[in-house]
Amino acid sequence: MAETVSTRIYPVEQLRAFSERVFLHFGVPQEDARQAAEVLAVADLRGIDSHGVARLSSYYGLLKGGRINPKPTVKIVRQTLSTATVDGDNGLGLVVGPHANRIAMDKAEHAGSGWVSVCNTNHYGIAGYYVLEALERDLIGMAMTNTTKIVTPLWGAERMLGTNPLAIAFPGLEEPPIVIDMATSVVAFGKIEIAHRKNASMPLGWAVDADGYPTTDPEALMDGGAQLTLGSDYAHGGHKGYCLAAMVDILSCVLSGANWGPFAPPFALQQALPPRWVGKGIGHFFGAWRIDGFIDPDAFKRQIDDWIRTFRQTRPAPGTQGPLIPGDPEREAETRRRKEGIPLLMPVVETLRLMAAETNIPFD
Amino acid sequence: MAETVSTRIYPVEQLRAFSERVFLHFGVPQEDARQAAEVLAVADLRGIDSHGVARLSSYYGLLKGGRINPKPTVKIVRQTLSTATVDGDNGLGLVVGPHANRIAMDKAEHAGSGWVSVCNTNHYGIAGYYVLEALERDLIGMAMTNTTKIVTPLWGAERMLGTNPLAIAFPGLEEPPIVIDMATSVVAFGKIEIAHRKNASMPLGWAVDADGYPTTDPEALMDGGAQLTLGSDYAHGGHKGYCLAAMVDILSCVLSGANWGPFAPPFALQQALPPRWVGKGIGHFFGAWRIDGFIDPDAFKRQIDDWIRTFRQTRPAPGTQGPLIPGDPEREAETRRRKEGIPLLMPVVETLRLMAAETNIPFD
Repeated sequence: MAETVSTRIYPVEQLRAFSERVFLHFGVPQEDARQAAEVLAVADLRGIDSHGVARLSSYYGLLKGGRINPKPTVKIVRQTLSTATVDGDNGLGLVVGPHANRIAMDKAEHAGSGWVSVCNTNHYGIAGYYVLEALERDLIGMAMTNTTKIVTPLWGAERMLGTNPLAIAFPGLEEPPIVIDMATSVVAFGKIEIAHRKNASMPLGWAVDADGYPTTDPEALMDGGAQLTLGSDYAHGGHKGYCLAAMVDILSCVLSGANWGPFAPPFALQQALPPRWVGKGIGHFFGAWRIDGFIDPDAFKRQIDDWIRTFRQTRPAPGTQGPLIPGDPEREAETRRRKEGIPLLMPVVETLRLMAAETNIPFD
Repeated sequence: MAETVSTRIYPVEQLRAFSERVFLHFGVPQEDARQAAEVLAVADLRGIDSHGVARLSSYYGLLKGGRINPKPTVKIVRQTLSTATVDGDNGLGLVVGPHANRIAMDKAEHAGSGWVSVCNTNHYGIAGYYVLEALERDLIGMAMTNTTKIVTPLWGAERMLGTNPLAIAFPGLEEPPIVIDMATSVVAFGKIEIAHRKNASMPLGWAVDADGYPTTDPEALMDGGAQLTLGSDYAHGGHKGYCLAAMVDILSCVLSGANWGPFAPPFALQQALPPRWVGKGIGHFFGAWRIDGFIDPDAFKRQIDDWIRTFRQTRPAPGTQGPLIPGDPEREAETRRRKEGIPLLMPVVETLRLMAAETNIPFD
């Protein structure tokens, strides 16, 4: 989708450094600030603009409003050899998430697999970040999180679930890895924001209005409507997207003692808090498997190479270039953006400048 | 969808006993025959007609043709505390699957979680069976399997993946469990068979024809076309369904050394074998987590009860009764069918009678 709004290009290093200093400004310890800025930078590099530095103002607002603890003591509250529940002490998800993910990976290295459910945390950036971390340690990683309610289950007329993403990645030997990172709604909320900003209509099947009727008007969604789950309607498997969103919700929140479903606290200071608390903060779920717990890692990676080459040779549907491999678009964005920089929409640039002015941290 | 084809009702016990005797007839050991018949009976009870006794003729054909080993030696070929790869010795998936699932559950009881990837196996019935078994042991179970190719990835024009189902279940305390069991294609192949038999058209978004063009004609799908993945087209997230199918394929097959993607051997004697072998048999993937590896199990189940009651109270979309809880339709079918029996289509009854005649096992 071509953007008509004008943009300005920044080297990723400049954005990363600015984010880090903003986190430091609110008392986030040095190493945590570096970590949090890194997660945002990876989103910007991979072209997930909605989850990069464009989100810094939300973290900024929550830190400034005292809603996020800048110096959390992240604790394991229960564990076995291959599982744990982690309490994030209401820290930044960008700090708690990587910490909990490392616990899952450590457990995997010892026990073959590791699973960590996290409560009392906040928005953790892109799910893809965590499974890329697992690849660095030659593990197959999995990551999920709940998010603020915006999605209705099939046959519902109100917001009950978040866009609850799910990520998993598999390493190749000569080929780049297969990286899956997907919201369980039809589209990520970012795509709806784009349509809204452009005053464009959405395809049927993305959303319903406040009364539960299908709508193509982004305004009707913003005004009390809801997004639909992957599959959209019953005939096209909308109940399956609901099942996936429910799975993410339960593994991330019910298993950890976080706020599930419609009770997830919002990721913005101005949004109303839910009517009741059923747990602490939002929830994440991380998993990791040691490849050599199943098969020789080189044999596995050679087969992944073969898988990738086989699927690239799929006969293309008319008018297309044929199937992609999951992770292709993000990897191509990263190659381009490392060279050319990160294009930011001017409204995003303005927000960064406001934060810069308020904190006396130089931006541009 | 109302069936116009006439049916005949059988008590589940009669079908289960017949299946068991058929398996015994081909030299399957007593305990394995009982197990295999049980998996089919659970599918019939839960209303997954395509995976119950209606499938017996496929197993029959493969056993008779010597393509399935009736007396497999199921072996762990590699393991860690919480993972294993199992070689099914080309046995019935209905026997190898439950065996491997028990290994995953045993590991979960010792290490907190257990994960088993299985190669050299065959069709294992409904994925839901395995996660119901986990509930019996107070575990959260997960099950996946690849299947014969029938699905094209987004922007493809040929069959590259199976309908690759995914199941997971969560226990409630007073409420019945949440049971998710879903193909990663828009619909299960069974729904297309029904449309085909009735000469009815399919909704757009289910399939493409042999040239990769969207089609509503079941005949065009049968005649070299392909099913679409959950999400159907790009605008509605068809790439996400492809990602899920790929995940199931890789965890079940690449991780275990089974035949992945288009190379899965067919589940019928008359279908052509794939052009090359990239592994052994088809593949499954089983997982289990101990709930108390994360949280007090009673606290978890009370929250699941709350989750279920909260989601049942979702405001309904116009013209609907509101959202269901995953597993509702199957549980209602089971209650009804335990009382009233299993309705079999007459063509299915005829096939059972043919097997009865050929084996001298009484049927009806």
